Amino acid sequence: MEKLQKTLAMIKQVDTGIMEEAQKHLDNLTKPPGSLGVLEDIAKKIAGITGEVKPALPKKTSILLAGDHGVTDEGVSAFPKEVTPQMVMNFLNGGAAMSVLSKHVGAELVVVDIGVAADLPDHPLLVKKKIAYGTANMAKGPAMTREEAIAAIEVGIEVAEKCIETGTGIFGTGEMGIGNTTPSTAITAFYLNNGVAAVCGRGTGVDDQGLKLKIEVIEKALALNKPDRNDALDVVAKIGGLEIAGMAGVMLAAAAHRKPVLVDGFISGAAALIATGLNPLVTDYLLASHLSEEPGHAATLKLLNLQPFLRMNMRLGEGTGAALAMNIVDGALKIVHEMASFADAGVTNKE
Amino acid sequence: MEKLQKTLAMIKQVDTGIMEEAQKHLDNLTKPPGSLGVLEDIAKKIAGITGEVKPALPKKTSILLAGDHGVTDEGVSAFPKEVTPQMVMNFLNGGAAMSVLSKHVGAELVVVDIGVAADLPDHPLLVKKKIAYGTANMAKGPAMTREEAIAAIEVGIEVAEKCIETGTGIFGTGEMGIGNTTPSTAITAFYLNNGVAAVCGRGTGVDDQGLKLKIEVIEKALALNKPDRNDALDVVAKIGGLEIAGMAGVMLAAAAHRKPVLVDGFISGAAALIATGLNPLVTDYLLASHLSEEPGHAATLKLLNLQPFLRMNMRLGEGTGAALAMNIVDGALKIVHEMASFADAGVTNKE
Repeated sequence: MEKLQKTLAMIKQVDTGIMEEAQKHLDNLTKPPGSLGVLEDIAKKIAGITGEVKPALPKKTSILLAGDHGVTDEGVSAFPKEVTPQMVMNFLNGGAAMSVLSKHVGAELVVVDIGVAADLPDHPLLVKKKIAYGTANMAKGPAMTREEAIAAIEVGIEVAEKCIETGTGIFGTGEMGIGNTTPSTAITAFYLNNGVAAVCGRGTGVDDQGLKLKIEVIEKALALNKPDRNDALDVVAKIGGLEIAGMAGVMLAAAAHRKPVLVDGFISGAAALIATGLNPLVTDYLLASHLSEEPGHAATLKLLNLQPFLRMNMRLGEGTGAALAMNIVDGALKIVHEMASFADAGVTNKE
Repeated sequence: MEKLQKTLAMIKQVDTGIMEEAQKHLDNLTKPPGSLGVLEDIAKKIAGITGEVKPALPKKTSILLAGDHGVTDEGVSAFPKEVTPQMVMNFLNGGAAMSVLSKHVGAELVVVDIGVAADLPDHPLLVKKKIAYGTANMAKGPAMTREEAIAAIEVGIEVAEKCIETGTGIFGTGEMGIGNTTPSTAITAFYLNNGVAAVCGRGTGVDDQGLKLKIEVIEKALALNKPDRNDALDVVAKIGGLEIAGMAGVMLAAAAHRKPVLVDGFISGAAALIATGLNPLVTDYLLASHLSEEPGHAATLKLLNLQPFLRMNMRLGEGTGAALAMNIVDGALKIVHEMASFADAGVTNKE
């Protein structure tokens, strides 16, 4: 709890003065003012986060947290639980979509076992921080104890701080956990307060009957656990997941150390709801990446007041949308560093 | 005319059999089927275009055609005409947004003077193919003769074919030409047939009065020139531009040689309307990149039946949106080549 409290206390407002200076610089470059849209928004936001008018091109790290979910006992996923450890090995061996896309954009991929329901072999690329062999079944009681939730958030903080020590300048969030759209939907539905059916999607691909069951299970979990709206720790403990809590920890640590975080899709979005629930200032350190096919994701982003800029119709998770977005962020920062000003290029400015 | 006719005749349907094979391959990779959304669509489309189930990572080339517009005499742009040659020098010197973003994604940038209203110095990176010193004022008569339009399209074909000879596997389209949202709006409004006001935007940033004037000028040009709906050559000659015709030529050559083209924003979209007007099969060789802030762009893409996947609120042109999209395309093709199958990775498939 001490690490979490200390991290929460470190989070300060972003520097709006630097953001204004950054916009002034952008307005001097050879283009109509504002015409690079989101590229300018990204550059300005990162200026405010880092406190640098021209932020250096950051070392990129994707943190992928893996955990299992007791609620899969209810039959809410199209894939069996054994896929979680199998996919962890696939990440480590470079064969997963997230492995390919992280490498593609030049991001380091850090894979963390925070709660896989199986023992994993040692591997040089695997960070072993297991809190439990998966969560408990939230349809029958709280998914985690409050202590487990805190420990999971602190794992996220620890892993992120270690990355920052070795130079990471921007994070992408990612996850693996069969069944994890179920707790994410529970969190989103809880905060949106508009019914489960409005935000519940098919995850890895359940059929109509599976979708109906999933909605019922989530409704049951919400009614049974009654999370406290003013206590995000209570929410993530009762209806969340170990990897969701861990991702919230990554976001908190990044904000505390003034590093931007690219939020992936629906599950990362649920983690962002927890992180901003713990400290609302975190939002200003987050950048949305893509809009997921999961119907609840648009609602999550609206709650977070974040605009996604990739429309890839993706619904894989793992951090794949955030990874793709890293190249766009690099592009935005290169604009800041490499474009000529009107004066330097001898181009006549607007009449 | 001979080159154009020959190119049009070379364009064949894409290979739908190969596309099915490509989807089968994608469905064997370690992810829920279809969960990579647009990345899968891109990979499949390029498979159909190239005839390869696993298309090689292509050499990327952005072709930027620069031309001026007589219609700027009417005061339709926020920037003066002298900016066109100034920006051409900026592209050649590496200081423009398009220079920065092309380099960022590893694309070669080919800059072509197809109709700048000024003499440009020799430069190793400048392709000199001037058809005229800008178009005539379409508010007072046709922008070009039919012969000029054909010559401009053939410049695009020639330049693209030369790139293909030296290994280009994918094109991005780009342009520079103060005033060129005016002919683009004219083309879009003409094909959409829903009034100029519905699709007319502020280009580089005219004010309310400027917008009103721009709409009036375009309405006048349409009423005066009466393009023939069944003759895309007539349309581009009367209300188009040299760089717009040239971009249409690039698209035709790419389709003829089975290479994909990333279409940039509003002006590239207008060129795509001309290219597909000349041969409707061209659409299947085009990939939309971003959705421009220009209000007419969404309408253009709807006419073309293309879905943009970047929502960057950009309105700069130059080819900047297509350039950013090239990294996404590379990512899609790496997925095809580098991801493990369920069998190879020992991951259990959907129950």
